[in-house]
Amino acid sequence: MAARPGGHNLAVMNGPKEKVLTLDTMNACVKRVEYAVRGPIVLRALELEQELRQVWPWAHHSPPDSTQQPASHGTGAFGSGKAHSVCVPPPSSQGVKKPFTEVIRANIGDAHAMGQKPITFLRQVLALCVHPDLLNSPDFPEDAKRRAESILQACGGHSLGAYSNSSGIQPIREHVAQYIQRRDGGIPADPNNIFLSTGASDAIVTVLKLLVAGEGRCRTGVLIPIPQYPLYSAALAELNAVQVDYYLDEDRAWALDVAELRRALCQARGHCRPRALCIINPGNPTGQVQTRECIEAVIRFAFEEQLFLMADEVYQDNVYAEGSQFHSFKKVLMEMGPPYSTQQELASFHSISKGYMGECGLRGGYVEVVNMDPAVQQQMQKMMSVRLCPPLPGQAVLDMVVSPPEPSDPSFTQFQAEKQAVLADLAAKAKLTEKVFNAVPGIRCNPVQGAMYSFPRIELPPRAIQRAKELGLAPDMFFCLRLLEETGICVVPGSGFGQREGTYHFRMTILPAAEKLRPLLEKLSQFHAKFTREYS
Amino acid sequence: MAARPGGHNLAVMNGPKEKVLTLDTMNACVKRVEYAVRGPIVLRALELEQELRQVWPWAHHSPPDSTQQPASHGTGAFGSGKAHSVCVPPPSSQGVKKPFTEVIRANIGDAHAMGQKPITFLRQVLALCVHPDLLNSPDFPEDAKRRAESILQACGGHSLGAYSNSSGIQPIREHVAQYIQRRDGGIPADPNNIFLSTGASDAIVTVLKLLVAGEGRCRTGVLIPIPQYPLYSAALAELNAVQVDYYLDEDRAWALDVAELRRALCQARGHCRPRALCIINPGNPTGQVQTRECIEAVIRFAFEEQLFLMADEVYQDNVYAEGSQFHSFKKVLMEMGPPYSTQQELASFHSISKGYMGECGLRGGYVEVVNMDPAVQQQMQKMMSVRLCPPLPGQAVLDMVVSPPEPSDPSFTQFQAEKQAVLADLAAKAKLTEKVFNAVPGIRCNPVQGAMYSFPRIELPPRAIQRAKELGLAPDMFFCLRLLEETGICVVPGSGFGQREGTYHFRMTILPAAEKLRPLLEKLSQFHAKFTREYS
Repeated sequence: MAARPGGHNLAVMNGPKEKVLTLDTMNACVKRVEYAVRGPIVLRALELEQELRQVWPWAHHSPPDSTQQPASHGTGAFGSGKAHSVCVPPPSSQGVKKPFTEVIRANIGDAHAMGQKPITFLRQVLALCVHPDLLNSPDFPEDAKRRAESILQACGGHSLGAYSNSSGIQPIREHVAQYIQRRDGGIPADPNNIFLSTGASDAIVTVLKLLVAGEGRCRTGVLIPIPQYPLYSAALAELNAVQVDYYLDEDRAWALDVAELRRALCQARGHCRPRALCIINPGNPTGQVQTRECIEAVIRFAFEEQLFLMADEVYQDNVYAEGSQFHSFKKVLMEMGPPYSTQQELASFHSISKGYMGECGLRGGYVEVVNMDPAVQQQMQKMMSVRLCPPLPGQAVLDMVVSPPEPSDPSFTQFQAEKQAVLADLAAKAKLTEKVFNAVPGIRCNPVQGAMYSFPRIELPPRAIQRAKELGLAPDMFFCLRLLEETGICVVPGSGFGQREGTYHFRMTILPAAEKLRPLLEKLSQFHAKFTREYS
Repeated sequence: MAARPGGHNLAVMNGPKEKVLTLDTMNACVKRVEYAVRGPIVLRALELEQELRQVWPWAHHSPPDSTQQPASHGTGAFGSGKAHSVCVPPPSSQGVKKPFTEVIRANIGDAHAMGQKPITFLRQVLALCVHPDLLNSPDFPEDAKRRAESILQACGGHSLGAYSNSSGIQPIREHVAQYIQRRDGGIPADPNNIFLSTGASDAIVTVLKLLVAGEGRCRTGVLIPIPQYPLYSAALAELNAVQVDYYLDEDRAWALDVAELRRALCQARGHCRPRALCIINPGNPTGQVQTRECIEAVIRFAFEEQLFLMADEVYQDNVYAEGSQFHSFKKVLMEMGPPYSTQQELASFHSISKGYMGECGLRGGYVEVVNMDPAVQQQMQKMMSVRLCPPLPGQAVLDMVVSPPEPSDPSFTQFQAEKQAVLADLAAKAKLTEKVFNAVPGIRCNPVQGAMYSFPRIELPPRAIQRAKELGLAPDMFFCLRLLEETGICVVPGSGFGQREGTYHFRMTILPAAEKLRPLLEKLSQFHAKFTREYS
């Protein structure tokens, strides 16, 4: 309802009424939440896209958020956006020609939005599940039909429109267990320890929610890596838990250092009760892939220090660097034998949003819990039941991901070819990113061993840092906003993920199409040089 | 990991290690959560289905949860299940022939699971969106293809696999606004006030989360109807807010009485700070449809008492009784004019899970907020962005629900016919339910004016109540468990929804297929008579 003439007077006539829900009266924990991946920089990107459409109405690129009206919503809620408006050109800039024709969203790991095609088999089976009349069509391979039939068989009324069990469709939980067992060289997995979820985020928040307790100095502390994926900081803020930062070692390609874990833990014990340790492997935003030795050391540390382990392993299929290999926490834990294998509590998360499939929009994932107290596991199941069930299309696609076509199946060859093409392409882009950035003075980029992002460190001249401070912005936020304004490239400042004081970074996805990525990287590098000159 | 011989000794050798996460150390708020709709009675139903498959392996009914192993999970987490095991036959009963061949799940509003067919148009368009190769198929009507194309046009990379805007795909928000405007006789709706969600539950919890604040006597209180849909009590327990009960008037067909609202509010003000009022209309579990006068009175009350209004209107398409009509809170609010229309805060929820579509498994819904503080609305958007976006298949189906085929479209006739058939069938079943129950001594059933449930009151003999107490069960839980054991009919005891002290009810869906419903109702009525005799 827009304000109408007279509306204000009328309100006064009736006595100005305070709203029930205001910034002052609302949930203070929610207010503290920040989420940089969709923060002020992205809202500004949306605005720019709108402005571009006014100048270049024939622009073919029409991204999902482009018709939003961010101007009316501002950016204040996103934490670091307070002073962002200072940096945004006045409304008169709208309709003014930009030095670019398209905004490139390298801010979020959204593969399909960047042009990656869905894997055919996944979509064939999902279409058959959605509209079973197609089971009579000659245009679908037999194994896709068989798969769709078996998924529907496990659905109430044979429909994806029925609720499933809150923990997910039982045969799919069983397939997930078999997948984990194959992945982990035969170490068994129990379907009853697997809970399907609405993307990995949902399951991560669920487990964190179980862990929070206590007041004051007894509040639950959760160790998270810095830099981190900001779901963790956001969820901990919302749950009023204490975020305990441990820094990854940029000089060792963002490796995790147990001595640093110990430092963080000791320090935290002074003001909270640390109870959980979160690991992201392969790393987001770092791209680091942990060695087996590192994982063993982390498990030993968690065991000795009585910490619940949370392993965010959503990029387990995204390992590119030679010599790097994904080792699941579950496998290493089990191979370490008792008492670790029999006692150490672990939750491991996976998702259909990343890997080679990139099915973010379907919101599918799972968590496997290991050595969880059975009574707590019941509580977890109960909590999930309140939200009824994860979306069934995401469950169905998860089924295909964990149980892909076999060599004897008609879809096998195409499936493998598509999967390998996506992964090879990502590997090439990971290498290219590192190479181009490292050729630029003032930018230093660790190898992108895995995941979907580079997180290069940038040098910023003191005058730029000064200028940012005057504007009330983090220096790398200032850099990223200027980059966006001048090139249309949207990346997320390192301050949104956390970084050592006095260092500056940004996160950029490696997802843009190969032919776009090189010019993009070069444009970004040139902008950095220009920016450095401007403030030197 | 099952316990292995020697495992215990080993643990002792290494020193018995306390788990990090136990019932004693976990989040106490989560522990307090109860959710009867999927509580102990449903877990027992799952067990029975498993047992039936052993006795009747040819049983065709294969519901989604049936392969779960509830025995290993117990039922303790579901609150009232503590003493439930007392009532469950010993393991030796497994494999013993039951006096029924199939468990009938009348516990949850899951239309497709009860045999309702999906609406063809919805599934055609969704299949086209999922697998756009089908756009070339001659087997789909033109309007379905056009719709799929326009939805994909609004998706990143033209794929349902891309993330959308966290508030939902913008053109779909606009269609929702147009739908609301048509529904409300032309009163405008602003797309920026509409947020798509993962089913209505997700949005309800989001709004409640914004509202909770304060400690001790300043804790947020939220008024909810009794009987209620237990999502509300569960969410309030989890958020550590105070549940403030107001009783619906069973003698006036479960009508809402403002005097009772006032009583509840006054009483609550002694120990908390009531800030929100939840309404479920049409009622779940009551089936009551509120009159326009009642809604006006509620709005006036909320305005005077400074309460944020939450209107759960997910059954807005499910109104059957003659003389009953759905009035949206938004429409009534706007028609009341200032200061109500300009100041009263309201959130209204809708879903694709109910109505005539019953697409629960896709998890789609929306909330419209009215007169919300813009700064708070930004906070809400931020909070939603942490979870990235609602599932896109649910968003797509919501688009069709709010913007169905027009009379000139090829799919119009079939769409209308299917929709009307479902609604007419539900209306007939609502009437039948009331009629059969009211013919039985000791059962009294208010008219099922809307929604999908009957909530009849049952008389229970004092000796049955006594026996239940001995077993540590709520008397109606005892009745429902016995009903399940002896007839296979699964309904939810009234104690899971709340009821006046000393009264007993159960909630039963009206969803079973017409040919099954009558025998089912009769079986249930006969069981009540037998049960009454047994304990008299």
